[in-house]
Amino acid sequence: MSVTPARMEEIFEKVKNWGRWGADDQAGALNLITPAKRAAAARLVQTGEIVSCARELPVQPNAENPTPALHMMVMAGDACDATGVPGLETAMDFVGVAFHGMAVSHIDALCHVFVRGQMYNGFPASDVKSIGALRNSIFVAREGIVSRGVLLDIPRLRGVPWLEGGAAITPDELDAAEQAQGVRVEAGDILLVAGGRDARREKEGPWNPVEGGLAGLHPECALWIRERDVAVLGADGVSDVLPPLGVEGWPLPIHQCTLVAMGVHLLDNLMLGRLSEACARHRRWEFLLSVAPLRVDRGTGSPVNPIAVF
Amino acid sequence: MSVTPARMEEIFEKVKNWGRWGADDQAGALNLITPAKRAAAARLVQTGEIVSCARELPVQPNAENPTPALHMMVMAGDACDATGVPGLETAMDFVGVAFHGMAVSHIDALCHVFVRGQMYNGFPASDVKSIGALRNSIFVAREGIVSRGVLLDIPRLRGVPWLEGGAAITPDELDAAEQAQGVRVEAGDILLVAGGRDARREKEGPWNPVEGGLAGLHPECALWIRERDVAVLGADGVSDVLPPLGVEGWPLPIHQCTLVAMGVHLLDNLMLGRLSEACARHRRWEFLLSVAPLRVDRGTGSPVNPIAVF
Amino acid sequence: MSVTPARMEEIFEKVKNWGRWGADDQAGALNLITPAKRAAAARLVQTGEIVSCARELPVQPNAENPTPALHMMVMAGDACDATGVPGLETAMDFVGVAFHGMAVSHIDALCHVFVRGQMYNGFPASDVKSIGALRNSIFVAREGIVSRGVLLDIPRLRGVPWLEGGAAITPDELDAAEQAQGVRVEAGDILLVAGGRDARREKEGPWNPVEGGLAGLHPECALWIRERDVAVLGADGVSDVLPPLGVEGWPLPIHQCTLVAMGVHLLDNLMLGRLSEACARHRRWEFLLSVAPLRVDRGTGSPVNPIAVF
Amino acid sequence: MSVTPARMEEIFEKVKNWGRWGADDQAGALNLITPAKRAAAARLVQTGEIVSCARELPVQPNAENPTPALHMMVMAGDACDATGVPGLETAMDFVGVAFHGMAVSHIDALCHVFVRGQMYNGFPASDVKSIGALRNSIFVAREGIVSRGVLLDIPRLRGVPWLEGGAAITPDELDAAEQAQGVRVEAGDILLVAGGRDARREKEGPWNPVEGGLAGLHPECALWIRERDVAVLGADGVSDVLPPLGVEGWPLPIHQCTLVAMGVHLLDNLMLGRLSEACARHRRWEFLLSVAPLRVDRGTGSPVNPIAVF
Repeated sequence: MSVTPARMEEIFEKVKNWGRWGADDQAGALNLITPAKRAAAARLVQTGEIVSCARELPVQPNAENPTPALHMMVMAGDACDATGVPGLETAMDFVGVAFHGMAVSHIDALCHVFVRGQMYNGFPASDVKSIGALRNSIFVAREGIVSRGVLLDIPRLRGVPWLEGGAAITPDELDAAEQAQGVRVEAGDILLVAGGRDARREKEGPWNPVEGGLAGLHPECALWIRERDVAVLGADGVSDVLPPLGVEGWPLPIHQCTLVAMGVHLLDNLMLGRLSEACARHRRWEFLLSVAPLRVDRGTGSPVNPIAVF
Repeated sequence: MSVTPARMEEIFEKVKNWGRWGADDQAGALNLITPAKRAAAARLVQTGEIVSCARELPVQPNAENPTPALHMMVMAGDACDATGVPGLETAMDFVGVAFHGMAVSHIDALCHVFVRGQMYNGFPASDVKSIGALRNSIFVAREGIVSRGVLLDIPRLRGVPWLEGGAAITPDELDAAEQAQGVRVEAGDILLVAGGRDARREKEGPWNPVEGGLAGLHPECALWIRERDVAVLGADGVSDVLPPLGVEGWPLPIHQCTLVAMGVHLLDNLMLGRLSEACARHRRWEFLLSVAPLRVDRGTGSPVNPIAVF
Repeated sequence: MSVTPARMEEIFEKVKNWGRWGADDQAGALNLITPAKRAAAARLVQTGEIVSCARELPVQPNAENPTPALHMMVMAGDACDATGVPGLETAMDFVGVAFHGMAVSHIDALCHVFVRGQMYNGFPASDVKSIGALRNSIFVAREGIVSRGVLLDIPRLRGVPWLEGGAAITPDELDAAEQAQGVRVEAGDILLVAGGRDARREKEGPWNPVEGGLAGLHPECALWIRERDVAVLGADGVSDVLPPLGVEGWPLPIHQCTLVAMGVHLLDNLMLGRLSEACARHRRWEFLLSVAPLRVDRGTGSPVNPIAVF
Repeated sequence: MSVTPARMEEIFEKVKNWGRWGADDQAGALNLITPAKRAAAARLVQTGEIVSCARELPVQPNAENPTPALHMMVMAGDACDATGVPGLETAMDFVGVAFHGMAVSHIDALCHVFVRGQMYNGFPASDVKSIGALRNSIFVAREGIVSRGVLLDIPRLRGVPWLEGGAAITPDELDAAEQAQGVRVEAGDILLVAGGRDARREKEGPWNPVEGGLAGLHPECALWIRERDVAVLGADGVSDVLPPLGVEGWPLPIHQCTLVAMGVHLLDNLMLGRLSEACARHRRWEFLLSVAPLRVDRGTGSPVNPIAVF
């Protein structure tokens, strides 16, 4: 199932949501998450079990993580009384991270990717300045993102512990996973697609995703995502297949079609292994999911720790 | 209602939860949030309205915020195609912050404060090293904190737009606020106490909290919080009265009694103005609250964006 | 001696070095420092006394320094053996700084300032991208800057401990200081102009330079600097008068005329108090001066610690 | 020429300078650089040619450099007029680095390494706190280090382009290099030992120094360095042989003997290829050398750009 640049153009145009929520809209498919949608999602909660979908913030460089986060103490126990205030003993730290990349669980804002100089809703790349994104920043999601989460567990469907690098998940497989799991992705959902990355890492250690590859969605899945009106898309990889499939001009077709055409925010590098287990245990692949980006004005995204509640 | 050092000692001993959940426990009062508690909290959701309780990450220095966060672009629209990959156009940024202080909405881990060299459950300050906290770090909350949130709105109780700096909220007022609002704080709750800081800032601009002061809880409230078995305590200030009340050796008695004695995590510098409005509008001061610290191993806390769902 | 925008235009055009060292030149007046010039500067050395011209890197916020440097330990003595290598005990730290501003001793690269979208030699501001300066970066000075340094001590000339904020040093005063000190500024020199900032700070504590002001060079001095073919200009302030003199479109005329028109690098926020003393003691206001910017490709400058050798 | 732990103990004790410059001394062998020494060094200058001994600050991760420096624009040309001041157009950046490691040219302060919990002059490791080094910090070198530099070019001596990883340079070779070059290392000198690392990198690309190794000084050289009273020791590697020679408890014997026993500061990861060429061209292996650490109080070292003047 190969894809030509012409077909990618066609898909890109077909899935476009530009203008759908007004010419000035910067929230994109987040508009699909209505209060009623959230209230319904909350009603899914039964046992109250929670599962984080984030990986530990990586602070050591490794193959998948060449530019780790900075975590440094400002004051530790050895100097806890150096506060200048008698009786005040404290420890403090600093956390900093260029979170885009292949190892930090993060959300991509709609200003993170451009196609031929344009981002979601036709705004120009020049709106994303060296002093920050004047449009389509993560600040549109500052109230948090709470909705129904649905996990489609592709390794489970295929009966393998994980998908190999370069594997492309097809629309048919999304349908098949829905059926196998007895769940249907609906408008306003946060769709998480598991490829078994955690299982592979546990077994084989970390690898460079560009070289060792990552499973991802076949570009044709963009149409599926648009049809179902997914609000946010997430993955244990980066939703796109790595290494890229080689369609000229479309190195990350899912990023390009979701962030730019549809206005669908992405969740990258999630930890979905334990969520998959929890879903299987509960025999239920839907849950209340809450994503809380840091309120960074002009930001291109944020590290996040999405929480699923069963 | 003044407090002596001797009385503080007494309160500190009375509210201690050391050993309550085992000699090795590092989660403290988070143990009070059971799955059942969470499930009940989810059942509170009615309209699906969400309200963030976090302030914008401050990136400019001002009176309340002398050491702002770093937010810098790694690559902006002007260089979005400098990726080395044809067709890949992207923007990325870096966020870094020493989040403790007076302006960033954050959670304090149980390793953030010590009393005479000890932190929660008797662990020594020396466990918090220059390479990070080996015990009581925020990593205990890595799955997220989801529970019933309760807001006690003290300006509303007093009939004022905000409490002045140095104002001490008494246990009686907590009782009175409960009655006025028709809500009762229970075991495992996340208790948020509003002092009107947002309203004051909006009117008067930012001020230095140490000089201009902040309203906070009277030290006697520690007993109330322990009695009710609050799991997490939050405020638009820092829960403590500023400038300190002047009890020798107890500069931040609420920090010292919650983090150290009780093992109650703190949420500092929240934005509670809009939450107060939402509660008043719904005439309901309880809600589902979700707090998702970044998964920083060995961290002394995390910037957070707590989300209330009505 | 007031200045109109028209006069500033005239000065700016008169002092321009664009094209003087070729259409592609990015080094500007650094071209004036020949090996022979350096060798002559080395011959000035007599006693071998050294004096640093830099201030301590500021790590605490204060009035003149709202965005201090980050200095954090990565590993301190309390964890010095946590290296994973038996016998290896070490301590390490991190230093980070946005060095432009009013408190860090630093050098400004020629890409630091633009006039109507152009920088030195007519290169467009768009050459300075979010990924760094593609032209006129500090990398042109990567071999270091070593030349004759000359100090003109204006408080000494005026017989005052320091010049008040807003004071403008005139070309006549530069001449007068030369004569009083028995020194003459020549082509390729690094000219340091002292205004007594250190003395004022020591007496009155730090102040906000924009409000409390800084002494600086009157805009007419740009002609003097060009005539003498100064290679690099430095000051204990920022060479410009603060608050700005109010010439429309020319908020920092010296910055604009040196960096942009002449291609003269600037040294800002130096510590010149001890250098002034040393010069007076030696009765000699010339010395070997060495400035060693960090080799940051694409950088807009660098923190520096210039060393004078007598 | 293998070395036992007992022999290392003996060497360590023999080269100790503890107490030599007083019980409170924190400057160590920098005391050997007298004003007269500096004046003599300045008299070495003939042509005025300058050569930087620093590498470009690494901002991209690679094999030898897993934790690169941060270099980010705060404001670039695309937003140069977003200053709030009419006519003020500027670009600014941020530089940050944990400079110890294998790729940044830096100076090690005497608080960087400990032997059994002690650093130079017997001060305890506990003096190096999470809030910074209270003793033996780089601040002792805040006036800069200016002295005679001497390069011993070992690849030249051996007639090879570079020394292989793991190669140990012996004291005899230091003597032989002196003779071959017609230079003698004397008290107060800054000794630079070239191993050809730049040449190897240029040919073979960057490698992980721990795996691919680095040439360094045999531990017996510590005695030679002490005998000659070298003030500062530098290398294109890290002065020590990598991988370590395997003497139990002495993973980095040169670091341990210089920093801890002798109080000799180290310059690591220099770029000595061009300096070697310049020395050969001038047929002179001595020069004026100036090293200007950033004035970081409590720092464990500093990135530097040492400048040689011929």
